[in-house]
Amino acid sequence: MPNADAPTDEAFNAATRRVLERTNRLAACTDHDTGLSRPFCSPAMDDAHRLLSGWMTVGGMDVRVDAAGNLIGRRGADSAQRALLIGSHLDTVVNAGRYDGTLGVLLGLAVGELCEQAGLALPFSLDVIGFSEEEGIRYQTPYIGSRAITGDFRSGDPLLERLDNDGVRMADALAAFGCDHRELSSAAYGADEVVAFVEPHIEQGPVLEQRALPLGVVRGVVGQTRAYFRFSGQTGHAGTVPMDARLDPMPVAARFVAAVEDTARSRAGTLATVGRLEVFPNVANVIPEEVGVRLDLRHADDAQRESAFVDIHRAAMAIAAERGIECRLEWVEQQPATRCDPALAETLSECVAAEGINPLTMTSGAGHDAVVMASRFPSALLFLRCGGGISHHPDESVTAEDIGVSLRVLWRFVASLAGREPSAKATAADPV
Amino acid sequence: MPNADAPTDEAFNAATRRVLERTNRLAACTDHDTGLSRPFCSPAMDDAHRLLSGWMTVGGMDVRVDAAGNLIGRRGADSAQRALLIGSHLDTVVNAGRYDGTLGVLLGLAVGELCEQAGLALPFSLDVIGFSEEEGIRYQTPYIGSRAITGDFRSGDPLLERLDNDGVRMADALAAFGCDHRELSSAAYGADEVVAFVEPHIEQGPVLEQRALPLGVVRGVVGQTRAYFRFSGQTGHAGTVPMDARLDPMPVAARFVAAVEDTARSRAGTLATVGRLEVFPNVANVIPEEVGVRLDLRHADDAQRESAFVDIHRAAMAIAAERGIECRLEWVEQQPATRCDPALAETLSECVAAEGINPLTMTSGAGHDAVVMASRFPSALLFLRCGGGISHHPDESVTAEDIGVSLRVLWRFVASLAGREPSAKATAADPV
Repeated sequence: MPNADAPTDEAFNAATRRVLERTNRLAACTDHDTGLSRPFCSPAMDDAHRLLSGWMTVGGMDVRVDAAGNLIGRRGADSAQRALLIGSHLDTVVNAGRYDGTLGVLLGLAVGELCEQAGLALPFSLDVIGFSEEEGIRYQTPYIGSRAITGDFRSGDPLLERLDNDGVRMADALAAFGCDHRELSSAAYGADEVVAFVEPHIEQGPVLEQRALPLGVVRGVVGQTRAYFRFSGQTGHAGTVPMDARLDPMPVAARFVAAVEDTARSRAGTLATVGRLEVFPNVANVIPEEVGVRLDLRHADDAQRESAFVDIHRAAMAIAAERGIECRLEWVEQQPATRCDPALAETLSECVAAEGINPLTMTSGAGHDAVVMASRFPSALLFLRCGGGISHHPDESVTAEDIGVSLRVLWRFVASLAGREPSAKATAADPV
Repeated sequence: MPNADAPTDEAFNAATRRVLERTNRLAACTDHDTGLSRPFCSPAMDDAHRLLSGWMTVGGMDVRVDAAGNLIGRRGADSAQRALLIGSHLDTVVNAGRYDGTLGVLLGLAVGELCEQAGLALPFSLDVIGFSEEEGIRYQTPYIGSRAITGDFRSGDPLLERLDNDGVRMADALAAFGCDHRELSSAAYGADEVVAFVEPHIEQGPVLEQRALPLGVVRGVVGQTRAYFRFSGQTGHAGTVPMDARLDPMPVAARFVAAVEDTARSRAGTLATVGRLEVFPNVANVIPEEVGVRLDLRHADDAQRESAFVDIHRAAMAIAAERGIECRLEWVEQQPATRCDPALAETLSECVAAEGINPLTMTSGAGHDAVVMASRFPSALLFLRCGGGISHHPDESVTAEDIGVSLRVLWRFVASLAGREPSAKATAADPV
C-alpha cells in the first residue's frame, strides 16, 4: 500500500553524493589541526551541530539539542504519538576516520530527505539522532548520548561529577555546551513513543569485505569477558640460574597465550585476544618476576563465552601449576550479549534481499549505541562494508556504491515500517 | 717447602670476623640514604677507599689509587718483579647487596694479613685490587677498572668523553676523584709482571646452594648471544576481526617464547631467557601490530651456543611463516666464551679438595672482572655460595662459615703459588 513512488535512481544518486560531501564537511569539524578528533561537548561538536542543524532545517525538519547534547531532527506531524529513530553518534576517537558514527547520522538525514522528496506520508515521525557520545573518550565512559535517550542517564547521576583530563566536570561541560543536566530526564523517550531504532554503522571489521557484500544485518552484539591473569615466579640473573632451577613466569605466560588462541580457534564464534602484557621488570637479561596477561574474550552466546572462559582459566592454572608458577586471576568483568530485535532484523534482511543482495546476518563484536537502545526499544543495526576492515584511523573508507545501496535498503525499511512496500521502480542500481 | 706455618684456626676465625665487620662498614659507604649504591668515582667510593686504605696501611701494605680509580694495596718487597693480584670490584648497582664485588677485595686483604701474621715470605708481591668499576652503571659500560689494568682502556679512549646521567664527562669524574686520565696507560700491568689474578666473588646464582657446597671453581664464563626478534602482523579491533581473519603477532611471539625455552631445556648447559617483551600498542582490546622479543642466550661452548641460536632462529621463522606473520631478526650481538687459566683452576680445585670439600668446577653465566683479566693474565675465579642465589639486592647473604672456608682455600692457593705446601696444621674447620 505505498502512498508514494520510490525515489528515482537519480534521486538516490544525488542523495549518495550529498552524504559523501557532508561526510567530508563534518570531517573538518575537529579540535585538532591534524586529523579528526571530535569529543563530547567540544567546539568541534558545536561546529558539527551547526552544519547538521542547517541541513536538517533546510530539509524541513524541526531541530533540537537535548539535555545530553544529542542533536535531533524531527520530520513529521506534531500530532504523531510515536517516532521511528534513526542515527548514530557524532563524537569520534582521537585521529579518527570520518565514517565511524557520523555516516549513520547522515544516512538517516538522507533517508528523511528522500521521504520528503517522494512525498511519503509516514504514520510516525522520523527522528534523526546524532548521539552526543559513544566512544568513551572524554569521560572514559561510553554511550552517554544513548543512555540519556533510554532514560538510563538521568539528572543527579554521579557520572555528572566526573572530570575530564583537563579537570572539567561533565555537568560543566554540558552547561558550556548549552545543556542543562537538571533536565537530563527530559531527554528520555518512553518505550511507547518509539516504533523502532535503526543504526547504520560501518562494520569496523573485515567480514563484509571478505564476503564481497556491501551490507550485513546484525543479529546481536557479543558478550564480553575481560580478565587479568598474573603469573608470578622468581626473578634472577639470566646468566646464573640454570634452566632447571628457574621459576620463570615468562614461558608459562607464553604457553597460556598460545592456549588462549587454541581455545578460541576450537570453539566456533569465539573471539579471544591478548592485546596487552605487563612484564616486571621487563629487562632483557633478568628472569621476570611477574608477567600479567590481559584477556579479552567475546561470544554472541553467553553460555558459550562462559564455558570458553572456564577452559581458559583451567588452562592457566594447569600450565602454571606444572611449572611451580603462581597464577592468580586478578579480576574479571563480564558483560552479557545483546540481541537486536528479531522482527526488525528480519525486516531489514528482507529489504537487503529485495536489493538483490545476499542478506547476511552477523554478530557485532564491538559495542554500539544500538546495544544501549536495544535495552529499551526494538532496535536494528545495519553494518556497511569498510575498506580493509580499518576503523579508528584516518584510512577508514566506504565506497559511494555501498552508500547508495544502504540508502535504498533504508528507504525500503522505512517504507516497510510505514506499512507499505516500495514501488517496483526501486530496482537495485548496483546489485552485489 | 713451607717457609712458615699455616695460620691457626684462631687466626682464621679472627680473619673471618674482620671480613664480616669490614663488609658491614663498607656497606655504609653509599650515596643513598636508603640502600647501598656506590658508583664509580663517587663520594661513597671515596669513603670506601678511605676505610680500605686505612686497613691496608695498618696491615703493612703500600697503598695507591691508579689513574682509573682502582685502589691497590701492595704487600712485598719493592725488589719483586712480579705480583700476584687478588681482588674484585668496589662499585655496586643501585640498591645493592653488600657482598657483590666488595667481598673479593676484603678476602684479598685478609689473605694478605694472614700472610703477614704467619710471616710467609713470598717470591712475588701480593697486590690487593679494588677495581673502580665493573657494574656498568654510571657510564653504561662495564669493566672500566679491569680494562685499565689490562691496558685495554688507555689515555685518549673516546669513552672518556661519555656523559653520565648528570652530564658529567668520564674524564671529569676521574679528575674530581683525583685521577689523571692522561696517565691511564700507567695503570696497566705488563703480562710479565703478573704471576696470576684470582677473583673471589659470590656466585649470584643458586647452584652452590643447591649442591650444598660453599665454593666452586670457575672454568670459564659463558659466551652470550643477544638478539631481538620482531613479529609484525596486522592490528585490529579485538571484537570485530574473526579468529581466522587475524594476523595477530601475539600468539606467534608466545609460541616462539615457549620454543626458546624448549630449545634451552633440550640442550645441556644452554641458558635462554626472554626477559623483555615490547608489545605495540599494548592495549587490552586491540590486536597488536607488533611484538618484539628480546633473547638472551648463553653457553660455555661457543659452538653449542651458535647451534642453539640456529635452532631458535629457525623456530622463529617457521612459527611466524605458518601463520603469515612477518618475523625479522632485528639485531644480534655475540660475545665469545672466556676460559679461565686451566692450570690455575686445577690448583684452586686442589686447594678446595685439601679442605675436604668436593671441588666443583662450574661455568659462570655472568661476566666478572676475571673475564677481562683473563684476556691478558693467567686468571682464576672462585665462587662463594650466596643465600638463595640472590644478588643485586639488599637480601644478598654469605655465611661466616663460607667466608672462613674461602680464606683457608685462598691461603693454600697463595702458599701453593709461592712454591710451597701449607703445613699439616691447616685442617678444615668446617668441612662441607
